[in-house]
Amino acid sequence: MSNVKLYYFPGACSLAPHILLLETGHAFTTKQEVRGGSDELRALNPKAKVPVLTIDDTVITENIAIQTAISNLAPEKNLLGAPGSLESVRVLEWLAFLATSVHATGFGLYFRPFRFTTSSDEKAHEEIKVRAKELLKDAFDLVEEKLTGVHAVGDRFTAADAYLYVFYRWGSAIWDMEATFPKYAALAAAVQARESTIKALKDEGL
Amino acid sequence: MSNVKLYYFPGACSLAPHILLLETGHAFTTKQEVRGGSDELRALNPKAKVPVLTIDDTVITENIAIQTAISNLAPEKNLLGAPGSLESVRVLEWLAFLATSVHATGFGLYFRPFRFTTSSDEKAHEEIKVRAKELLKDAFDLVEEKLTGVHAVGDRFTAADAYLYVFYRWGSAIWDMEATFPKYAALAAAVQARESTIKALKDEGL
Repeated sequence: MSNVKLYYFPGACSLAPHILLLETGHAFTTKQEVRGGSDELRALNPKAKVPVLTIDDTVITENIAIQTAISNLAPEKNLLGAPGSLESVRVLEWLAFLATSVHATGFGLYFRPFRFTTSSDEKAHEEIKVRAKELLKDAFDLVEEKLTGVHAVGDRFTAADAYLYVFYRWGSAIWDMEATFPKYAALAAAVQARESTIKALKDEGL
Repeated sequence: MSNVKLYYFPGACSLAPHILLLETGHAFTTKQEVRGGSDELRALNPKAKVPVLTIDDTVITENIAIQTAISNLAPEKNLLGAPGSLESVRVLEWLAFLATSVHATGFGLYFRPFRFTTSSDEKAHEEIKVRAKELLKDAFDLVEEKLTGVHAVGDRFTAADAYLYVFYRWGSAIWDMEATFPKYAALAAAVQARESTIKALKDEGL
């Protein structure tokens, strides 16, 4: 058995790989990170971001790659869809959309507008934040439109569900999610009821 | 043989799947798009973005998912790395980094700062653009630091090389890439020398 370790921040996007790790049944340890990253994290990842996954001496960054590596720990579960299948393409389509339009240019700009301008003017930050909220609303409307059941792809749990769940939680800081995005809410409720999610939330103190 | 069609805009990030399609040897057609997307494109993709790939009646969006679907057309070439391998995790790590830190919050903000603020003030746009350039420089410095040869992963061509090549071209609008990022320049030169790339550039009128 390889030594698997996840560096996470409570409730951050690292919650998705945390849930996935519990789904694999593979043993692992976690390290709770600090804002900006501990020395240990920064030595592993110059981007100083969570999640980081280590498998023995192999260091993996970027959430989509980490989710793929975790899925590889339990290939029979096809957490990213069966390799080579349309299902796996659909899972990656969700993951890529969430990583770019929802996380990077959505919540990234919403939560940290100051990071994306040289201006120190609070009004400039607020104008980025307001726009990010509009972009996020468009993205969440698209999620709501695309969902046809409580799973994002096919009729079973995949990494796309866990990643969607993370951003559903984040969205609760902005909207009444259940009232605004009822199909998305049903998916999030299904993810939240999973043993893996219950344990991940508890382990992260949430 | 399935009917494969790529919707692209010349020199856009759709150039990467265009190169990959040529690498597979699979027959395909292309449709050149217009800024904002044609009616045909918008009917397929509400996000109104290129690339879009259709395989018979299946519509695929998001560059990383499209590259995966293309790789599946010629599984023996392992353009995304062998499924389940560390190589495939490394390819996805590159693709995810490029899609988020380089494309979304880098060039996205640099080329279209007005999209990310409610302000119509040109100074506000310039302040976002200047910051995006700094973030891109950090990202490209990281690329330069990570590269150890003319291929991003292992000692052969993968989707990571093609995707890196697209952003190298974009970077030329900002920096003297060869002088600033010599290892990245060597990788880009290797990609540019491939038959697939030569043909893709010609087909896109570049």
